[in-house]
Amino acid sequence: MTNRLQQYVLERQARVNQALDEILPPADSRPSTLHSAMRYSVFAGGKRIRPILMLAAAEARDWGTGHDQLGAAIECIHTYSLIHDDLPALDNDDFRRGKPTCHKEYSEAVAILAGDALLTLGLLTLATHGEEIDYDGLNRKFRSDRTAVVARAVGTVDGMIGGQMADLEAEGCVPTPELVRYIHKSKTAALIRASVVVGSLCGECVEEEPVLHNSLCLYGDRIGLAFQIVDDILDVVSSSEQLGKTAGKDAQQAKATYPALYGIEGSRRKAQRCLEESLDALGVFSDRAWALRGLARWIVSRAN
Amino acid sequence: MTNRLQQYVLERQARVNQALDEILPPADSRPSTLHSAMRYSVFAGGKRIRPILMLAAAEARDWGTGHDQLGAAIECIHTYSLIHDDLPALDNDDFRRGKPTCHKEYSEAVAILAGDALLTLGLLTLATHGEEIDYDGLNRKFRSDRTAVVARAVGTVDGMIGGQMADLEAEGCVPTPELVRYIHKSKTAALIRASVVVGSLCGECVEEEPVLHNSLCLYGDRIGLAFQIVDDILDVVSSSEQLGKTAGKDAQQAKATYPALYGIEGSRRKAQRCLEESLDALGVFSDRAWALRGLARWIVSRAN
Repeated sequence: MTNRLQQYVLERQARVNQALDEILPPADSRPSTLHSAMRYSVFAGGKRIRPILMLAAAEARDWGTGHDQLGAAIECIHTYSLIHDDLPALDNDDFRRGKPTCHKEYSEAVAILAGDALLTLGLLTLATHGEEIDYDGLNRKFRSDRTAVVARAVGTVDGMIGGQMADLEAEGCVPTPELVRYIHKSKTAALIRASVVVGSLCGECVEEEPVLHNSLCLYGDRIGLAFQIVDDILDVVSSSEQLGKTAGKDAQQAKATYPALYGIEGSRRKAQRCLEESLDALGVFSDRAWALRGLARWIVSRAN
Repeated sequence: MTNRLQQYVLERQARVNQALDEILPPADSRPSTLHSAMRYSVFAGGKRIRPILMLAAAEARDWGTGHDQLGAAIECIHTYSLIHDDLPALDNDDFRRGKPTCHKEYSEAVAILAGDALLTLGLLTLATHGEEIDYDGLNRKFRSDRTAVVARAVGTVDGMIGGQMADLEAEGCVPTPELVRYIHKSKTAALIRASVVVGSLCGECVEEEPVLHNSLCLYGDRIGLAFQIVDDILDVVSSSEQLGKTAGKDAQQAKATYPALYGIEGSRRKAQRCLEESLDALGVFSDRAWALRGLARWIVSRAN
């Protein structure tokens, strides 16, 4: 990561963390155990990749500032998916980001409800953020549109929950390229794509520039797929300490992954190709998209 | 229940069931186990009280037809809450509406994801229904407003998830009137109130008639509280067969309920008072609100 990008990421991580602190109920407000658990998982050290991609997309479109809470909303939804994915009935993970998972630190009941609550809070924030600066019904449109974009990405039809289910069902099966692609696109790429799309929807005249909007949709789609391929590779080649979660679990659970299907080198080539396609999609943008370009390169080259 | 109301309820149940069939993905579409589980729980025989209250509120405001899918969205969200509430880590119920609960029929993993998916689908439908008839940004406003009303009613701050958590934490404690009231208002009354409010938001000129809107908010609040008080009473006085779920569980789990605090007769008096307040709130309405009045009386006098 270049110094410029590192500085960029650190600044936006701080802004997103601030926005998360603003939208999450105080830990001591009733029901305090639940609010504590929500904050525990949200502030367990995530990299904030999705909100940063969202903010970088808004900057590429030149939509100004004031969108940090939308990034925080997306991070809440991402955190919900991790909490539920880690539950004993699903992936049964004891560690996440180097800390005990929500159900280990609190209880299964609290983890289920904390996940539900973060999903709800995320969609609520998408539906309401900016309502105080509403004018001419335009902002209204974007409130429901961006809520719908994210809810679709979370749902069962080509969305995250559908991918989680297909992922579970595929355990122990012989993976086909079509199935692995479906799982990755829905389980991970859909929400990453939606994050970029929400960034593109932060302005007031999206319909006037469909080329820019569609380019960002494609960028999000490609970099989302690359992200999960790299995640699969890291699960094989890294230690648990490096990852902050249990490494080698995919092979142990016979998950349908890119390395299982294409090997490490074949998977790296596929991730590289996604990166190139994502950069191609940004061709219509000037230097305003420099952060999106840098983030794409970093997503593919990262070590954890 | 009068013949007229019985006919009214049956007709709207059929319309809501049709709308649910429309918005739920087909059971044979991927991931089919998950879509089957969602349909299994949604079509397990619910009374559709929340959607019918929503439709009756829209009729009281004279908002015409075409809102059935909004009712279906609310029923999806209600069903999500039942599925998660029944999980072993929460209330650990094996039967619901006379059938095995979702995690007994499928698995815990499927039940967790099916609940997540129904919550997401419900909020998605609220954010998108009617977008094809959008004009002048007005309908846009109501799409995000009604999404926000329901998401707040589901959330942790005076909403359903907060109530579920407080309910769990209160098990075995000596209940105070303030705590029991908080649990009931948030766990049950919030979503019932939101259902009525969504009905009031089906039109295009809500702001012009705040008195009618506020009256419906109050009606929803009062009848929501009455609903949960009667639920508590039925858990004590009914058999499992009558309820279609395990009876007597509240006392067994030492839940913070109205009967535990006020006895059966005291609880009946409180439910009756809520009914009277809900009917008073409808005083500004003509005969258009007849169904809301009948539904309120039925909610308080029902036997299951």
